[in-house]
This record gives sequence, structure tokens and C-alpha cells, in this order.
Amino acid sequence: MGIANRQWILASRPKGLVGPEVLTLQQNAIGPLSGGEALARVRYISIDPTMRTWMSDRPSYIPPVPLGEVMRAAGLAEVIDSRHPQLRKGDRVVALTGLQDYVVFSGEMDPRYFQKLPAIRGISETTLLGVFGITGMAAYFGMTEIGKPKKNETLVVSSAAGAVGSVAGQIGKIYGCRVVGIVGNEEKRRWVTEDLGFDAAVNYKNPNWKAQLAAATPQGVDINFENVGGPVMRAVLERMNVRGRVVLCGLISTYAEESREALDLWDVLVKNLTVGGFITMNYSARYKEALRRLAWWRWRGRLKDRVTVVEGLEKAPEAINMLFAGANQGKLLLKI
Amino acid sequence: MGIANRQWILASRPKGLVGPEVLTLQQNAIGPLSGGEALARVRYISIDPTMRTWMSDRPSYIPPVPLGEVMRAAGLAEVIDSRHPQLRKGDRVVALTGLQDYVVFSGEMDPRYFQKLPAIRGISETTLLGVFGITGMAAYFGMTEIGKPKKNETLVVSSAAGAVGSVAGQIGKIYGCRVVGIVGNEEKRRWVTEDLGFDAAVNYKNPNWKAQLAAATPQGVDINFENVGGPVMRAVLERMNVRGRVVLCGLISTYAEESREALDLWDVLVKNLTVGGFITMNYSARYKEALRRLAWWRWRGRLKDRVTVVEGLEKAPEAINMLFAGANQGKLLLKI
Repeated sequence: MGIANRQWILASRPKGLVGPEVLTLQQNAIGPLSGGEALARVRYISIDPTMRTWMSDRPSYIPPVPLGEVMRAAGLAEVIDSRHPQLRKGDRVVALTGLQDYVVFSGEMDPRYFQKLPAIRGISETTLLGVFGITGMAAYFGMTEIGKPKKNETLVVSSAAGAVGSVAGQIGKIYGCRVVGIVGNEEKRRWVTEDLGFDAAVNYKNPNWKAQLAAATPQGVDINFENVGGPVMRAVLERMNVRGRVVLCGLISTYAEESREALDLWDVLVKNLTVGGFITMNYSARYKEALRRLAWWRWRGRLKDRVTVVEGLEKAPEAINMLFAGANQGKLLLKI
Repeated sequence: MGIANRQWILASRPKGLVGPEVLTLQQNAIGPLSGGEALARVRYISIDPTMRTWMSDRPSYIPPVPLGEVMRAAGLAEVIDSRHPQLRKGDRVVALTGLQDYVVFSGEMDPRYFQKLPAIRGISETTLLGVFGITGMAAYFGMTEIGKPKKNETLVVSSAAGAVGSVAGQIGKIYGCRVVGIVGNEEKRRWVTEDLGFDAAVNYKNPNWKAQLAAATPQGVDINFENVGGPVMRAVLERMNVRGRVVLCGLISTYAEESREALDLWDVLVKNLTVGGFITMNYSARYKEALRRLAWWRWRGRLKDRVTVVEGLEKAPEAINMLFAGANQGKLLLKI
């Protein structure tokens, strides 16, 4: 007896993309709650490039998912039953729910991975996972703590139509920067320039893209908000101005192959560059500050968001691989 | 007729160290001053690793010295005759004097490379080129702008007995850090620990030095003030803590060979590191602020300096090569 719960189990560590041998869908039953436990229904899963890094066993900012365990994922869940002292039925939380239908919470919740959502009216759950979730936090802390945008500077954002990149570019516009996005298709190029207000966008699949990037950044590049790595990043770095900042948010081009991305320190030295890597959860103590500013900007119409929703827990592996094919616009969510 | 002036001319671009084919000593005569010119006697030349980079034609923060011209060098000079509107006989300046006995100034002086010295009593000229010169400025801006030391953090300084490293480590102590130096001989180890107050120092020529570094940094490394690059830097980077800062002041191990030093961006990302390269002249607008604080610390006995003086313009090539052999303690100066 109990509640049927489907779970994606990490069966093997991937080589490259997430093939059928990597994740296995199992079903088990959740029995009655013990004291101190809460049961929550997972409604949305945030599909993020970092999930691919959690499947690997190379040293990272968080231990890899052990083989045989439920795949780690951040999601939005609603408490449906509780014997937990801090959670009540009806509470909505963003937490590491795992790739599953239901999650049982118990004990003290780590504030780096667990936020109870305020009962805000009129904000969709997809926005709470996107602009107001870890995605918005990543863009906010990367831009304000490392990018430090100043009026009339030039910001280049790679993966500009992605979840974080699309927000980072809009924050650059709010600060008065010239903002240039790098994208992988024409539809994305139109979205970031026509809807999000980027000054220009360059499609890196165009053979002439480096010349287009140069034309779009006539004053050089002051801030590179980097999500990709590889040739895209290197082309941008060549155009960095003295005292430029590289906001190292992600290196998605290296994740599937677990390849290394090297930076030439001579350039960093002689151009007086600052290169800052960051992991958003390290700023969790300041999420409220970020949320206040993001909400203000959004209320004033300065921050738009778009969500790509994939329906069905069974589509999780496909959804993860979509990130690596650049198949999403904005935030990619799995609806359970 | 005129004043005999010996000059080191850059005759060829070096491969490796500065061999006899690289610099040629010539003598010419300086005639009467024209209107707007000032003649100054060079008294000390600051011998710095970056001089080796100025000899190469790879892109850098400043154009290379053209072949056939006087080798660029920063020095302290005293004006002995002037028809220049801003310079008077007796003025002392720190400027790009070149590797020569005399220098003629004319026109508007670039404040990035030219400071008139205040007539401070009781401060030796060697200190004005060292702790109170570009050396002190490098340590000050590197530590305060990029290193951002906090009480009880661990700072590791490479080339710790060098001009900049010895000051950077003392600034770390002033801010309450545990300071560990990396040095190349026992005498330097004793100097930085016994005289300068470093908590520990490790001789990287000791086969066991990595274990010693680990023992000296039991809480990991929060700040790496890096002057060297190569295996020394990589060993320190392995011990960096989350949210650590790498102050990239120099890469002397790469200069003679013009080799590349690469940084693994995965580590920067997952450890939330900040890597900041800097060129001291980019902070010239704030030299007075730095000088005030350095002078205050020195007056209170918190900053000690040591100078290695080589006598005679003719010794310039040897002096430059001494830097690469680690033959100096503290600031290396050439007395003319």
C-alpha cells in the first residue's frame, strides 16, 4: 500500500549526453509518514545544465549523485501531508526534490537548497522557478557581484536565450549597458533583440559570426557573462577591454564531455581582467535582497521571462538533453 | 660637446634570459636644452621582472621597446637643468627614465609613468622606489582591490622575498591574515618569517615542499598573491578554498620563455574563485591614497623593506637576470 512514486534512478555515469543506460525509471510506494516528516507533490522540476555535472564523479561544488539513488533535481513542490514541525499542508517550497513524483522532507532543511515560497498572488509557479528562482539569482549575483555593470559599458552574454543568460542581459540593460547576445538560431536572435531589448545578437552558427560579433561590439567588451566556454568564449575574450570582467556562470560546452576549459593567464594579467566563477547557492543568505530587486524590475516591466515546459516525468532524460541541443528558450521546466 | 650619456640599447629580442646580444651599451652626447625640456640625472633604476616582457613583441599592456631604442626602465632621477614649465632644478621624479645615465623630459608628462616626489625628509630614495614606489603600489592595489583580505583568512604569497611579495605579505599581516610565503632559499625563508612576521614560509626547492605547504595552510588558502605561475601556482591553487581570490600580479616563470600559463576554469567555477590580473599603472589616479596608507603603516613599524643594490649602469643586464635566478631579497635596484 501507500502512494505510488515514480523515480529516476542514476544507474550509470554518462559518457556524453544522457543515454538510456544512465537513468532508469522505477516505481515504489511511499508509506505513512513518520513523526517529523512531510510529504510533498512535485509540480515542476527545474532542468539545468548543472544536472549533467551532478551525474559525473569529478570533483565539483557538490558531491556527485551516488549510483543507485534518485537523480538530484531542484523543483517546486506542494506539501500535501505533514508531521514536520516547519511545514504545513498547502506550503509550497523550492527544494532539491529529486527527479520524482513525490518527495518526503524530514529534519532540518538546509537553507542553501530549501526555500518556503511566500503566498504571492499573481506570480506563476514557472516564474517562481525562473526569474524569481535560482535562475534569476544566478543572473543577479553574477551581474552585480562580478560583472559590476556601468552605464555605457558593453556586455556580451553567451547562451543569451537561455534561462540565466536572458535575465543577465536584461539586467545589463537596466544598468545602461550596450548588450549583445550570442545565440544558436534566428528565432532566439529575434526574441532577445525584439522582445528583451538586447542591442544586438549574433548567431554563432553563422560562418561569419566573429565578424558580426566585432561589428556588434565596436567599443570592445567590458563584461562577458559566460555560460558556454569553448570557441564562443575565446572569441569574446579576444575582444575584452582593459579592466574587463568575466562572469563565469557556466561552461555547458564542457559538461557532456567533461572536458577542460583553460584560460590564458597572460591575457588576464596584461588586460587587468577579473574572472569570477560563482555557484549561486553560495549567495543563499542574500536571496531576499535579490528577490526584492528582481521583483521590482519585473513589476516595472524591465524583466521579461519565457518558459519552455516539457510535460511528464517520463520525459526527464530528453529534457536534460534538450539543454545541450539548445532546444529551449528561457527557462526549461519539466511539469510533473 | 655636451654631456656624455651611456645608454643600453635594445639590439635584439631575447630568447630566454638577457644575453650579450640583447642589450648594447652605447655612448652619446646630450647637447644644450631646447625650450620645454628638462635634463635629469638618473640615480636609481628599478629592476623589475616586467622589463623582460617589454623586450618581447608579444601583445602586452604596453608596446614593446622598439629595436634600436633605449631600453625602457623606471627610475628615480634628479633634475639638474630645466627649461620645462613643470620641472625645476632639484626636483626628484620617478619616471620611465630608460636604462641610461641621463634623461631629457619634454612636453606633458603622462601621470601613469611620471610622479614628482614630495621633498620628504628621512625617507631614503631606495624606499621611494620600493615600498613607496610602484612596488608598494602593486602590493597595495593587488591586496586591497582583488585580495580583499579578511581577519583569520590564509594568504599565500609566492616570490615572498621579492619586492612586491614581501610587501603583500606584510599587508596581509596588517589585515589579520595567516600569511605563508613561498621562497627559493633558506635565507629568504628566515627573512620573511623572522623579520617580516610571516607565519610560515616554504622553500619550493625542498623536495617535500608541497607537504610543507599543506601543513602550513591547515585551513586551506583564501588568497593567493601570485607572482610566479607554473608548478608553484598550481600547487597553491589546489588548496584554494571556496570563494578564494587569486591576485595575479605576475607570472615570472613564463617571461623568459614567453610560455603560456593556463588556468582550469572548472576549478574557478566550482570553487567560486575570483582571479584578478592587474597592471599597477592602471591605478595611478589613486597612488596618493595608497601612499598615505603605506606611509602610515611604515611609520607604525608594520612595513619593513629590504633593498638589493647593484652598482653601475654597466651591470644592468646582469641585474635583470638576477631576478630570474631569485638572487635578490626585496627590491632590486641599480645604482647609477
